[in-house]
Amino acid sequence: MTPARFAVALPAGQWSTDPAVVNAHRWDRSGWQPAGRPIGVAFAREVTDVQAVLRAASAARVAVTVRGAGTGLAGGAAASAGSVVLDLSGMNRIRELSVTDAVAVVEPGVITADLDRAAREVGLCYAPDPASAAISTIGGNIATNAGGLSCAKYGVTRESVLGLDVVLADGERISTGRRTVKGVAGYDLTGLFVGSEGTLGVVVGATVRLRPAPRSTVILAAFFDTFAEAAEAVTALGVAGIVVAVAELLDGRTVRAVDAATGSDLASAGEVFLLVQTDGSGAGEEADAVEGILAERARRVRRSVDEATAEALLAARRSALPALERLGRVLIEDIAVPRGRMAQAAARIVEIGAATGVDIFTLAHAADGNLHPIIVVDPADPAIPERAWHAAEQIFATALDLGGTVTGEHGVGVLKRRWLATELGSRSHDLQLRLRQVFDPAGILNPGRAI
Amino acid sequence: MTPARFAVALPAGQWSTDPAVVNAHRWDRSGWQPAGRPIGVAFAREVTDVQAVLRAASAARVAVTVRGAGTGLAGGAAASAGSVVLDLSGMNRIRELSVTDAVAVVEPGVITADLDRAAREVGLCYAPDPASAAISTIGGNIATNAGGLSCAKYGVTRESVLGLDVVLADGERISTGRRTVKGVAGYDLTGLFVGSEGTLGVVVGATVRLRPAPRSTVILAAFFDTFAEAAEAVTALGVAGIVVAVAELLDGRTVRAVDAATGSDLASAGEVFLLVQTDGSGAGEEADAVEGILAERARRVRRSVDEATAEALLAARRSALPALERLGRVLIEDIAVPRGRMAQAAARIVEIGAATGVDIFTLAHAADGNLHPIIVVDPADPAIPERAWHAAEQIFATALDLGGTVTGEHGVGVLKRRWLATELGSRSHDLQLRLRQVFDPAGILNPGRAI
Repeated sequence: MTPARFAVALPAGQWSTDPAVVNAHRWDRSGWQPAGRPIGVAFAREVTDVQAVLRAASAARVAVTVRGAGTGLAGGAAASAGSVVLDLSGMNRIRELSVTDAVAVVEPGVITADLDRAAREVGLCYAPDPASAAISTIGGNIATNAGGLSCAKYGVTRESVLGLDVVLADGERISTGRRTVKGVAGYDLTGLFVGSEGTLGVVVGATVRLRPAPRSTVILAAFFDTFAEAAEAVTALGVAGIVVAVAELLDGRTVRAVDAATGSDLASAGEVFLLVQTDGSGAGEEADAVEGILAERARRVRRSVDEATAEALLAARRSALPALERLGRVLIEDIAVPRGRMAQAAARIVEIGAATGVDIFTLAHAADGNLHPIIVVDPADPAIPERAWHAAEQIFATALDLGGTVTGEHGVGVLKRRWLATELGSRSHDLQLRLRQVFDPAGILNPGRAI
Repeated sequence: MTPARFAVALPAGQWSTDPAVVNAHRWDRSGWQPAGRPIGVAFAREVTDVQAVLRAASAARVAVTVRGAGTGLAGGAAASAGSVVLDLSGMNRIRELSVTDAVAVVEPGVITADLDRAAREVGLCYAPDPASAAISTIGGNIATNAGGLSCAKYGVTRESVLGLDVVLADGERISTGRRTVKGVAGYDLTGLFVGSEGTLGVVVGATVRLRPAPRSTVILAAFFDTFAEAAEAVTALGVAGIVVAVAELLDGRTVRAVDAATGSDLASAGEVFLLVQTDGSGAGEEADAVEGILAERARRVRRSVDEATAEALLAARRSALPALERLGRVLIEDIAVPRGRMAQAAARIVEIGAATGVDIFTLAHAADGNLHPIIVVDPADPAIPERAWHAAEQIFATALDLGGTVTGEHGVGVLKRRWLATELGSRSHDLQLRLRQVFDPAGILNPGRAI
């Protein structure tokens, strides 16, 4: 990995070793900052640029860190010493948007919310909705198999990706999958690339599925005395046959942080806040049923009657992360457990916070059991304190203990890598390492990340 | 592959070399009957039986053909000479059905419809609904990534499989995936096993997602003058924002065959028959919208008002395959094209029938562009005539030409294997062969099938 040997022919302005430029492109939002510097940043505009970078990197045996908007939360896009950063944010064209086939063909640097907006202009939508949708890219979403708020109803990113164009480590381009909803010719390489965090190839194009945009939505907010009651209420919705689009849960600590930040007085209505959204042609009828079920368990239920009241109810959820960011530097954790274990997981997280002396606030995408324990540390600390990492480790152990996963939607990156073999089992982990070798025998694609 | 060297220790009655037993377990429903005989059939009841068979087969280098109910349509479960048939139909227990987590844990031999029935008893359902659901197994559905009628709304088998227990070629057992809807730890081995047709490992258990059973459904039937108008009407439903649960299309030839078989007079109402089903809490409202859109294009639209009228409308669709089976021996083909190309595909299939002198009838799962051209051959012919295979080849070529796939939901098996490299591209095909080697270095798992 001798930087001097790396040379790539790219159009003018698309390769930089300027320290300021490199610094602006070497980290993601995980808080993890590897020692040593990458040697430069390649700004791809065309597939041929990506091929040139990978051919040059293969020849020089230089590692490549692929990057979209750099919003990753697990260190997957944090570049190591001596690597080349391959920035795809300039490949941001929506190539096609077909109403007839209900698909879009996009480049990886398209901002997720931009795709959704374009689809809505023709009555469709792009369903996966990670909280980062306004700033993250489709390529990054594909790399991490990003989730979001409405996955229990509409699936995660993988369920919306029909086919991919991928440049392999040696620079050759392949296509996977198809433009149809169904198709079983060969192994599911599309699904294998989704969530592979830049370790199997570089996604340079995607054919994604669009869905009809829901015509109507209803928002409900409910306040509970305990997290357990709120979690039970969400399970009760499912048992009653209602597939809600969104079920967002804020624990009592988060509710109080929101009150402190915004001057609201949510806590007096109930410790724990649950936001539910129904959508589609049955939205009103489903909301009636939701209201009845929540009312049996909650101290109070409110329901949107128009855009303004919907906005007011959404405000609390939306202000949660900003409210926590006021308190310090946030580390957003990301576990998922079987839905029935959510209350147990939340209770253990409270215990972990108490035992380690770390401030932990929990948000949950409750319909799919995905919890985000948010660790808040003193911004005056130059590095993340040891006890915060220790609390995170205990949170991961809890997830596995409850039959869940150490990462629901953010990816493994660097931060969760040492937990992977534990979750997967050693034989399965070994198979994954061998799969990786099939795609990248020289090991230049995002080494040290994902698996 | 010397049969004499193969010896396996299984409980009494679970291993047979009796020619009658072997004959009853050597073929599937593809019509493909390889020459030569398998050496015996192993009837697995427990995971340890599967492990014993695979260890013995690995030691003796004997090929293993895994089999559920033998309903495959592509030859994936047709056993070659000298192989061991591993029958999983006796592993048919539903291990768990959790309402709280909305999952079931099942053995591979569970009949798909039995799982759905058990789920509905507690208000849930198993959404994937291949037409064979009453006779095929979950394991077989997983092996082929089976589709069905309602995939455009609820996804194919892959979207309902959360985790798998798999016995690898050497007899070791691994677990993949999870019990949660979300989870991104490691590569998606679950998705890789789904659709791998017994070539990567033997699925001995599956954790599948259940969904709330829809409370209400509405059935509509519409009659059109042309296939193209009916296909356009289905596209118009999607464009209007309606996600129908089912949209089944029968071409004019099939409609006339149904009339001939059942004494009905559908053809007088219109050449082409479309059955649409809406479901869920918005079913009624959606049916109103569907009715309006269909009425603009169809000669006639009927709508169910109760169970009896729904049954009457469903009858035509349900009697299609039996009506064709009266005419001769049926070969069920299975292509998918982008939704907007469906009418073109159907027109080309008519031309192919005329040019080859083969009777071809087309059914379609129209919401996802999945066409089943049904080739009917004279049952007096001892083998499938050459012109029928020739017509099938032209149908596959049409699918690829229109941007589709040679198999939407039935699998590659043997019959479509020579088309695979064309569809996938040679580099992608080569990657798949290498993946296979990672899982099965000795090549004992269903050799000559799938890829």
